[in-house]
Formats: sequence, structure tokens, C-alpha cells
Amino acid sequence: MKNIPGPSGKRLVILSQLLTQLSEKKEKTTSTEISELTGWSEATIRRDISLLELHSGKSNGYSINELNEAICSALNIAKSDKIHKCCIVGLGKLGEALLSSPYFEKSNFKIVAGFDSNSNRIEIIKSTVPLYSTADFERVMKMEQMEYAILAVPDEKAQKYAEKIMQAGIKGIVNYTSTVLTLPPQIKIQNVGPVTALTSLLAI
Amino acid sequence: MKNIPGPSGKRLVILSQLLTQLSEKKEKTTSTEISELTGWSEATIRRDISLLELHSGKSNGYSINELNEAICSALNIAKSDKIHKCCIVGLGKLGEALLSSPYFEKSNFKIVAGFDSNSNRIEIIKSTVPLYSTADFERVMKMEQMEYAILAVPDEKAQKYAEKIMQAGIKGIVNYTSTVLTLPPQIKIQNVGPVTALTSLLAI
Repeated sequence: MKNIPGPSGKRLVILSQLLTQLSEKKEKTTSTEISELTGWSEATIRRDISLLELHSGKSNGYSINELNEAICSALNIAKSDKIHKCCIVGLGKLGEALLSSPYFEKSNFKIVAGFDSNSNRIEIIKSTVPLYSTADFERVMKMEQMEYAILAVPDEKAQKYAEKIMQAGIKGIVNYTSTVLTLPPQIKIQNVGPVTALTSLLAI
Repeated sequence: MKNIPGPSGKRLVILSQLLTQLSEKKEKTTSTEISELTGWSEATIRRDISLLELHSGKSNGYSINELNEAICSALNIAKSDKIHKCCIVGLGKLGEALLSSPYFEKSNFKIVAGFDSNSNRIEIIKSTVPLYSTADFERVMKMEQMEYAILAVPDEKAQKYAEKIMQAGIKGIVNYTSTVLTLPPQIKIQNVGPVTALTSLLAI
């Protein structure tokens, strides 16, 4: 895995998704086209791509598939068959909606468990995904070899459950709450709650 | 508004939320403590804070409230009473969950409308927020002076609705789909879909 700085890595993740979309329509693209589609400057795009150490020529544009494979390989986000097991912690309306979200269908991520502290909630929700009490956290996480957790509990419970998730040995958390989680740096976190995202829109 | 680069701005948004949480417990903090809580290096934290051009001394730590106010002022994310009007586009399970999300309660963002192309869906959903057909898009956006939109439509409809949102004069989009939106750079976008967030966890 090459050493790619955070902001470039994030752009390359988005670029990989964009290339997958483009690959249904065409075979080649250019930094000019990518710039028009994403709004990033051509210099930024060329610098990000230069981090991939591509060996093929680019005088007449990038091969969309080659570029996409180079990104996936550099960032270790393989377009391969590897499926990453994930769970949803907190089955309020948002957690319940994510359980059956069509967004996961064509992805490399599979929701294999949902957790809630309220056993009534677990009985009421209809889902093809197995649901558990948060009391079963560690047992299920280990049984399933869970890699990532999506946190959708109320704000005031977020830190407590983030710590439980960490103790169960998970690699990273997608945080849909507005709480800033304070965890050791080896646990990766993406803060994607609606309020955090809207506040970021104000700031950028 | 000071010129603060994107990655610093994003960290400062998170730092502001963290300071609000800390302010309930104490009055002062240090870059060492912030580093322990966030996992960012002390050098990064000091560099971000230096962008704020704080005038008060910091030999014995930062005043949490002063630092928070400096961030809010620099990023124009005022802790003030200014309420930003937002709408949700796409009222599937995820959009419906966001409509009544408690995460907005203490925030400066208010959901004032929901849109769906399916009029049955609009009649079925129970909500205190007014719901409209997407045919009424432009009229409602202008009437409400809407600032931001949260996009939660199916992936294959995301680009089409992003363009409609743009035409209605909105400033930014929080994108919960997995589709990379291609819009002019003046429309700000935060990509926070679960699949995008999980893929970013693989890459960072």
C-alpha cells in the first residue's frame, strides 16, 4: 500500500466511484474531464494521480479501467470479491433504514448484524439481517469477524457505544451521530452525521 | 472569513463540536488533550489553531469557549441564532428517518420540507414537516429560501435530482447516495453515503 496523504486518499475514493460510473459509458478520460465533473482543479487531479505511480502513457488520456484498478490497488480498496462484514449499532429510525438500504447492494460491504439495547425494538423490526441485544456485542462481533460498525445511536449514547465497539476489536466506525468520538488513533472514524455534514458545507 | 484550507476547515468543524462537548465539563484545554481525544498530532492541531489568529495567550492552555468562538467566527459557522433552512429530497426509508431525526434538535439546521416523486409516499408518511411532490421543487425552494438539501434518493436518480436542486438555487448538498454527483464547483457537496464512508475507512 503506497503512502497517500488523507485528502488525496479521500479524493481518490470518490474518483474511483466516478470512474466506475463512467466505465459504463466510455473507455478513456482526461484530467480536464475529471475536473469538469468533480470541480477539483486539474493540478490537484494530476497530483493525486501521480501518487499512484502509473506506468502507462497518458498523452491521449487515461484508460478508465486501468486508472480505477491503480486507485483500488494503491488504496487497498480492491474491486475484488472481498466482502467486508459490517454491523449497525442503534436501531432507531435511521439505523432501521440503513439495515435495508439498497446502497449496499452493489458494494463490497455486507450488513450482517444489527444491535439495539432495547429488546422490544429488536422484536418489532422486520429484517432479513439478524438482530441482537447490545449485551451480545462481543460474542457476535467475534463470531462474525466483524470489520466495521455503523453507529446510529442517540448522541448522548454515542461515546459509550463507540467504546464497546472498540473493545470488540473493530477496525473502524462510520459515525452518523453528531457526537465527536474520542478513541485511540488506531480506530478509524468517518464522521458523516447530517449535522456534521451540513456544518462542513457552511465551512468549505 | 479567513482563508482556511479544506482539510483544516474540516478538522476545525469537528474540533468545534468537540469543544462544545468539553465545555459542559471544564473551561480550559490544551493541544495535548485535544490530540489524545481526536488522534490528530499536536503539530497538526497547533497549525490548524494558528490559522485562527487568536490573540489571547495560550501558555497555560486554551479557553474552550474562546477557542470555539474563534473557530465559529473564522469558518462562519456562528454559534449564533441563525437557522439554516434545509430540505430532504427522496423519502424512502432513509429520507423518512432523517425527517424526524433527533440529531437536528440542538443544531442550527432546520428541516422545513421533504420531497418525493411518488405522491403515495407523501400521503403515507406521517411527519410534522410539510411534504411536497418533486414537481413543486422550485416553487418551494424559493418560497422557503432554502439553503441546503439532503439527497437520499436511489443511486440511479441521484444526478438527475442533484441537477434539479442546483437549478432551484441551493448552496450545497449533503449526498447520502453512493453516486458521485457532477455539478459546477460553486455547489458545495459533502459525500456521506454509508458505502462512500465505509470505502473511505478502507483507504485511510
